[in-house]
Amino acid sequence: MNESSLLKALIESLRCLPGVGARTAQRMAFHLLENDRRSGERLAEVMGRAMREIKQCSRCRTLTEHDTCRICANPARQATLLCVVEHPSDVVAVEQATGYRGYYFVLGGRLSPLDGIGPEDIGLDLLEARLDEGEVQELILATNPTVEGEVTAHYISELAAKRNIPASRIAHGVPMGSELEYVDSGTLSHAFEGRRKYS
Amino acid sequence: MNESSLLKALIESLRCLPGVGARTAQRMAFHLLENDRRSGERLAEVMGRAMREIKQCSRCRTLTEHDTCRICANPARQATLLCVVEHPSDVVAVEQATGYRGYYFVLGGRLSPLDGIGPEDIGLDLLEARLDEGEVQELILATNPTVEGEVTAHYISELAAKRNIPASRIAHGVPMGSELEYVDSGTLSHAFEGRRKYS
Ligand SMILES: [Zn+2]
Ligand SMILES: [Zn+2]
Repeated sequence: MNESSLLKALIESLRCLPGVGARTAQRMAFHLLENDRRSGERLAEVMGRAMREIKQCSRCRTLTEHDTCRICANPARQATLLCVVEHPSDVVAVEQATGYRGYYFVLGGRLSPLDGIGPEDIGLDLLEARLDEGEVQELILATNPTVEGEVTAHYISELAAKRNIPASRIAHGVPMGSELEYVDSGTLSHAFEGRRKYS
Repeated sequence: MNESSLLKALIESLRCLPGVGARTAQRMAFHLLENDRRSGERLAEVMGRAMREIKQCSRCRTLTEHDTCRICANPARQATLLCVVEHPSDVVAVEQATGYRGYYFVLGGRLSPLDGIGPEDIGLDLLEARLDEGEVQELILATNPTVEGEVTAHYISELAAKRNIPASRIAHGVPMGSELEYVDSGTLSHAFEGRRKYS
């Protein structure tokens, strides 16, 4: 061991970041220590707070440090529209790409019986309660176009059907097998506009 | 603003890492928050400690959280050899690539009169004191093969000449204009073996 053990620990810890291997982690550590300690200290502090304080919105399950997120807390949005997505990052993607002004519901995953992920693990009890409130008049299913995402969308469409709430599925242009988060804005916007009634 | 402000702050802060743009920062933040909070908390804690506690080795100026680094504190190394490098990461590169068993001196930069970086800013007063101790019998100049790196090596070679200490410069195979840290091990090892007397 020729390096400082704290430096080694920093390099090792940085590898928890997606896409960061040993070499990149080392470059990041030296960069912060040699050139930018203030930013490193600020990042450490913000990251610690974020990990401890950010939780799920009590209404839509997206990430927020408040009880309800900014979107749920905004009474100017259209309460008749509810868009169901898998991840908090999908909310960001839809907000940036489309003119959608309804509310969201974030599953935090998808049904996957083989992995033991059932309806309550993705908050469907909370979603049912939301649908029972009676305000939602269209449920937009924007789960990822993967096999499990489709199965999840289908399952949710039946929860809507039971309550006579029309469900639609975003459709055109989203390539099968891809993740919503990485689709370009134009495609996603088009898919939103071209949504069709779930049948 | 549709996102949590703490989430926004985390994404913004992550951009201080080299090579991390807005998109990558967002992916990192969501990954930690959704899948790996424990690693995120640990990274935050280690990074905070590293930024506060890691400083310069009192003897060679490399990064360490102790008074002297592991290499300087190792009496089994060859006290007659001293290798001068620009950055702490260069020490790691030389250690990994070569069989060098002497000590190091880390400048933390290079002479750059136009940027107001003079001899004392890169620790040359400390280096002179080290040479005055009388133990060093060969000074290996391993600054980067850039214009400023060469100027710095030349300047230091004169400090050595004044004391009748032979100085050598690593040479063969390191491509001009490149940074030592990114040279492959074989090339660096070769350059080390092929060092020539500084004249
Ligand atoms: Zn919410
Ligand atoms: Zn040292």
